[in-house]
Amino acid sequence: MSDLQRLRREALDAPESGIVAVINYARGREGLIPLWAGEGDLATPDFISGAAAESLKAGETFYTWQRGLPELRQAIADYATRLYGTSLGPDRFFVTSSGMHAIQIVCAMLAGAGDELVFVGPAWPNFAAAAEVNGAKAREVSLDWSTAQGWSLDMAKLRAAVGPATKAIFLNTPSNPTGWTATREDLAAVLDLARSAGIFVIADEIYSRFFYAGARAPSFHDVATPDDPVIYVNSFSKNWAMTGWRVGWIEAPAAFGDVIENLVQYSTSGVPAFVQRGALAAIRHGEDFVEEQVQRAHRARDIFTDALLSTNRVEIVPPAGAFYAFFAVDGLEDTRAAAFRICDEAGVGLAPGTAFGPAGRRFLRACFHRRLDEVEASAERLARWIGRAA
Amino acid sequence: MSDLQRLRREALDAPESGIVAVINYARGREGLIPLWAGEGDLATPDFISGAAAESLKAGETFYTWQRGLPELRQAIADYATRLYGTSLGPDRFFVTSSGMHAIQIVCAMLAGAGDELVFVGPAWPNFAAAAEVNGAKAREVSLDWSTAQGWSLDMAKLRAAVGPATKAIFLNTPSNPTGWTATREDLAAVLDLARSAGIFVIADEIYSRFFYAGARAPSFHDVATPDDPVIYVNSFSKNWAMTGWRVGWIEAPAAFGDVIENLVQYSTSGVPAFVQRGALAAIRHGEDFVEEQVQRAHRARDIFTDALLSTNRVEIVPPAGAFYAFFAVDGLEDTRAAAFRICDEAGVGLAPGTAFGPAGRRFLRACFHRRLDEVEASAERLARWIGRAA
Repeated sequence: MSDLQRLRREALDAPESGIVAVINYARGREGLIPLWAGEGDLATPDFISGAAAESLKAGETFYTWQRGLPELRQAIADYATRLYGTSLGPDRFFVTSSGMHAIQIVCAMLAGAGDELVFVGPAWPNFAAAAEVNGAKAREVSLDWSTAQGWSLDMAKLRAAVGPATKAIFLNTPSNPTGWTATREDLAAVLDLARSAGIFVIADEIYSRFFYAGARAPSFHDVATPDDPVIYVNSFSKNWAMTGWRVGWIEAPAAFGDVIENLVQYSTSGVPAFVQRGALAAIRHGEDFVEEQVQRAHRARDIFTDALLSTNRVEIVPPAGAFYAFFAVDGLEDTRAAAFRICDEAGVGLAPGTAFGPAGRRFLRACFHRRLDEVEASAERLARWIGRAA
Repeated sequence: MSDLQRLRREALDAPESGIVAVINYARGREGLIPLWAGEGDLATPDFISGAAAESLKAGETFYTWQRGLPELRQAIADYATRLYGTSLGPDRFFVTSSGMHAIQIVCAMLAGAGDELVFVGPAWPNFAAAAEVNGAKAREVSLDWSTAQGWSLDMAKLRAAVGPATKAIFLNTPSNPTGWTATREDLAAVLDLARSAGIFVIADEIYSRFFYAGARAPSFHDVATPDDPVIYVNSFSKNWAMTGWRVGWIEAPAAFGDVIENLVQYSTSGVPAFVQRGALAAIRHGEDFVEEQVQRAHRARDIFTDALLSTNRVEIVPPAGAFYAFFAVDGLEDTRAAAFRICDEAGVGLAPGTAFGPAGRRFLRACFHRRLDEVEASAERLARWIGRAA
């Protein structure tokens, strides 16, 4: 047995990200428009980066609070209170080393060997992978696709998937990759299911501001009380163009604070204070920036979906939220091979649907959160490629 | 059953850090000299912070390489090659979100439910806690204490602790908190044990530069080949005064790269590029800074241990490595209570030995990595307190 084979089974089984595989294939290629990753094309605004640089200059380079800087926790609480119209205190908020890290901590809090976590797919692969690295089983319930109405959640399927080993339901809304956005009724039904089964909801509402049918997407905050068993994971990445900063947060009942603090201590031991100063500037002063980004993404969505639909060979319904076009092309089955070909033949980087679970296999994901001229150019390239592939 | 009680057992059982408990008691208290944490008093040097600030200004705020920037991996490999006098390639090095995160990833790689990890104590509590959060059992083998000769490792005890469920031996040398430093013979014996048992060594050599009996502490690099089952965890924190930056690395056989990349992806998804630019400046241009720090710590060690020994009521042998005085006071048994009293009565912040496992219970840990006038002042305060407590 080689040393490699001696590694823990769950570590060996952790899947390669099907998104990263394509990025590694064509990263930095001249002229390619990269729509593969879940980030926009804007660098972090100067008022945010500058706040971090000032903090570095002031010597904020020591160990810091494991739950996050008190002023940042307060600012997140103020933001959430404004956004959801319900009073939320700072003792519910815990700063983490990214939204991904928030998910990892919540998995460690809720489910290990012998436990199950149910999630709704097609889904960004990292939740299921993090759950399984932690020893739990991640069980997917697929949204249904209809060409006319897009994606929808069948509560009967979700209910049937919850069993005695289930510890939580993970719901990402608006969804990466589909853009499906739960209605208030969907959320109330999921919460009822969790309450009656005595399990948790893990609410990933990272894209709640990127919503094209209202000021923000419906949230579990609209249907749950602060004492309900809902744990939220969130991130500074998307709203404030801070993907590379690795800073996010957990919102949970304050009584969970000691457990969360310990799990932060024993995973990354906190987020750099200077990174938190950037996050603080973002959440205090970044509202105009968020709104400009969302407006641009709304235009981009329309440009992109119109171009795809004009081919008459694409299945897509304009997504209600997030910033991805998740589309199927008539006759195209092997989307993993297609993603590599599209890099070579169309000069556009996409993520293959195979990265997002069985219900997404026929689809490709394009992130349209970019300069509109590049959105147009990439959509035209794709439309031409689809025409040729006919 | 409350929602809190529904959390996963391993998460609920994660211990509060006995160090953080004292810090939270007296953080920021006027006039107190804090020797409780494992960090010096120097902010990160400007040439490091400035490199990070430049990177922020240049817009390096996007997702980045999951294994670390290629140039940083190369620079770490060059550093290790110089330090150990053996050629080590960049494909062996993986950047992580702190030394703690390196440990968390290595635990996830090696041991989950039903597995055991053996470690040598008294020890910094975070390794055992991270192992157990991950579902494994952490089994401590205690160093032996002798007033004349200090701490020593009994290989027979270590051998006896390795059983069929053991996946690895974790060894921190020089040791936090004891300063015990494995000899080359100790290291060869531990490696032989691991080889013959078909298990891994996790080598935490974070303090290898802080060694007072030679240019660096003995390392597993001195006795192992690159193909041996040794996985190293390391950090920028101590050498370059970067505790607050949360950046470290793993060194492992290159064949483990895919597994490590996946575990990074599913935990924090990488280290900010601008943080890595700071780390790159540190490791390329920080050699003088390391040497100045080590010289100062050497002086501080002597000042501090001399003052304690002058009381004739303290057991300590000047530590060969790391930057802690780990000492017992005659007649003092409850070191946790004493750590709180010493904050109040002596104006010095210490970590209680209870934080470091059973063999350390009678001891207190003081970090002497500070300005020498403060080292003198705190040692005098402690010596007076010890006199009064007689």
